[in-house]
Amino acid sequence: MRRVYLDNVSTTRLIPEVYQVMKPYLEDEFGNPSCVHEWGDAAKEGVEKARTQVAQLIGGQAEEIIFTGSGTESNNFAIKGLALAQQKKGKHLVISAVEHFSVLHSVKTLEKWGFDVSLVPVDKHGLIDPETVRRQIRNDTVLVSVMHANSEVGTIEPIKQISQITKEKEVVFHTDAIATAGTIPVNVQELGVDALSLSGNQFYGPKGVGALWLQQGVRITPLLDGGVQEGGRRAGTENVPAIVGLGKAAELASANMTARIKHLTHLRDRLLSELPSAIDHVVITGHPEHRLPGNASFCIEFIEGEAMLMLLNSKGVAVTSGSACTSRALKASHVLIAMGISHALAQGSLLFGFGVDNSDEDVDYLLEVLPLVVDRLRQMSPLYSKFLKGGE
Amino acid sequence: MRRVYLDNVSTTRLIPEVYQVMKPYLEDEFGNPSCVHEWGDAAKEGVEKARTQVAQLIGGQAEEIIFTGSGTESNNFAIKGLALAQQKKGKHLVISAVEHFSVLHSVKTLEKWGFDVSLVPVDKHGLIDPETVRRQIRNDTVLVSVMHANSEVGTIEPIKQISQITKEKEVVFHTDAIATAGTIPVNVQELGVDALSLSGNQFYGPKGVGALWLQQGVRITPLLDGGVQEGGRRAGTENVPAIVGLGKAAELASANMTARIKHLTHLRDRLLSELPSAIDHVVITGHPEHRLPGNASFCIEFIEGEAMLMLLNSKGVAVTSGSACTSRALKASHVLIAMGISHALAQGSLLFGFGVDNSDEDVDYLLEVLPLVVDRLRQMSPLYSKFLKGGE
Repeated sequence: MRRVYLDNVSTTRLIPEVYQVMKPYLEDEFGNPSCVHEWGDAAKEGVEKARTQVAQLIGGQAEEIIFTGSGTESNNFAIKGLALAQQKKGKHLVISAVEHFSVLHSVKTLEKWGFDVSLVPVDKHGLIDPETVRRQIRNDTVLVSVMHANSEVGTIEPIKQISQITKEKEVVFHTDAIATAGTIPVNVQELGVDALSLSGNQFYGPKGVGALWLQQGVRITPLLDGGVQEGGRRAGTENVPAIVGLGKAAELASANMTARIKHLTHLRDRLLSELPSAIDHVVITGHPEHRLPGNASFCIEFIEGEAMLMLLNSKGVAVTSGSACTSRALKASHVLIAMGISHALAQGSLLFGFGVDNSDEDVDYLLEVLPLVVDRLRQMSPLYSKFLKGGE
Repeated sequence: MRRVYLDNVSTTRLIPEVYQVMKPYLEDEFGNPSCVHEWGDAAKEGVEKARTQVAQLIGGQAEEIIFTGSGTESNNFAIKGLALAQQKKGKHLVISAVEHFSVLHSVKTLEKWGFDVSLVPVDKHGLIDPETVRRQIRNDTVLVSVMHANSEVGTIEPIKQISQITKEKEVVFHTDAIATAGTIPVNVQELGVDALSLSGNQFYGPKGVGALWLQQGVRITPLLDGGVQEGGRRAGTENVPAIVGLGKAAELASANMTARIKHLTHLRDRLLSELPSAIDHVVITGHPEHRLPGNASFCIEFIEGEAMLMLLNSKGVAVTSGSACTSRALKASHVLIAMGISHALAQGSLLFGFGVDNSDEDVDYLLEVLPLVVDRLRQMSPLYSKFLKGGE
């Protein structure tokens, strides 16, 4: 049986060239970068090279990169750290309704600590209107956080336009760029943000590492206290092999971005255009144009997402029905609900995330098995029988 | 030139057998454990096996293990998470004066949030008297944290006796076992603690992973909010290769502990007994008996630690003068100061951390080069000239 991995939204495969540069740090160069000896120096050199590589990917300065243990940590650090550092100025935050749980739940924690939060709505394509951000900003607003793109539906948000507003209002602006950094061009200067989160395993780098880019001069309260690593902003022995891998993944992402985007866009567009004619009652979710290259997301009516994932898995196809962090929780996606999609339809959401390893043959195979799976599930669906009886 | 790594306190070399089990997860088994498909299942299986292995190392239950990104994160999580979860009950903490900075600085953060902290002193060997812990516990004390062993001077603390007191007083008791778990026998039931931190890179496992063992029923507030990983207690995509490696390192540590302890104790005892006759004015620091097997720590009079590290490095010898996290900061160790050692003497502290790869030849080489290095530095030391003029 063919095995097709179409869950590059949840995590990507470490590419061999990245793994290759990590190997010495998993073998002889095992030192702790904080130590004053040859082993420490070699490790430190690896970490500092990676810092430059990551900075170059996003148009920042090396000293503005803070390595973390994951994208989730980067988001927690940004939201809590930036809010706490400014709490004397005010305790109001503005975020979008479609943020990742690492932002949403960090904000919930801040609410328990006396912060007040306003949610910016999205339209039916998941897009934010910058003017709604402007309207939510108050005198006591200290932080705005809007994701660069939503990984579930692929919609790319107008960060540049929002940053014009936050600059005018003099409010710190963070963007969760976990779905975009390393995938599409991301330049912190052009975007005009003050802080940006990214994650290694989203662009063929290793797990266990993320980064927060923080504009020089912007104050942040550490989340992890202890040693003086990362300029005293993130304590803990550096995950050297993973950091080195993140650096290489960043370098390769820059070098191959145009070709990757072309390849992924081709596969995505094939699926977006061919799936609706292969299966009835399919709703494409997300924005038709402002969209991540590898993201094809749908809701399939009269189908329950979990069952679909399992049947597809039995056919060798790996997909997800939403955020990786929630797929085992199986609640209707807050992103789809915010876009005005009904709970019933949201239950049938299916998210294909193409990666660099995918091919046209993968799309062919998917277009072959998906209709069979959908048919089989609909035959068992009382809702579908009812619909059929009602007549079309 | 011979190269001798004697800085196993700062970090250890990943042993090849551990790296071997990590490899599949850096290659084909790259899935996200939260995902409902074969790639996700394989990753989840690796993580759950590791959870059992780590639990077995410390006599806990698998479901009581929470994987983190480092020992520092485990300590931050324990201190902040256990304190915040109980803040309605009280806002007083008791910790020892010789804790690692990841505990000390977490506590400083809690002080900013309105918590009150009492420090338990140590004797000249770095040992805590359990009765001083009892005296510090108040009605509003919600957490006691005392490290199992201090990595800088090797002193092993009387955790079992302290836990009898915390049980009697019904106060949650956390121990930082980063220096002991995987090195000497650690059993959470015997120690009687409620929470215990450990770190992979301290016992030949990978960097980028740690764990917090948390007794079932003990409440904790997450540090990283987001997805439902680790039972909703620590969000973020799991660092699967590192977690799998930590599991294997734990298994090997259990299997080889007796032999390792014998080997390390032999090397340490040789150095502790032979160094004072090879160099004048040497003070052994730490406890003479209750001591980590691989730890040989000294203060060498009329010497400045930084210069000594550099000269030893030029001879191929890697050591540290204290905590890895502070060696580039070069302040006098708070541990030595708490033990009543003068600032001047503390400046000449030198910490040899033996590991499984070290041999008698390493000790021979060290006993050959160290006196040369010390002589050279003392020739340049104004304090030493003054001392010599004063006569002995």
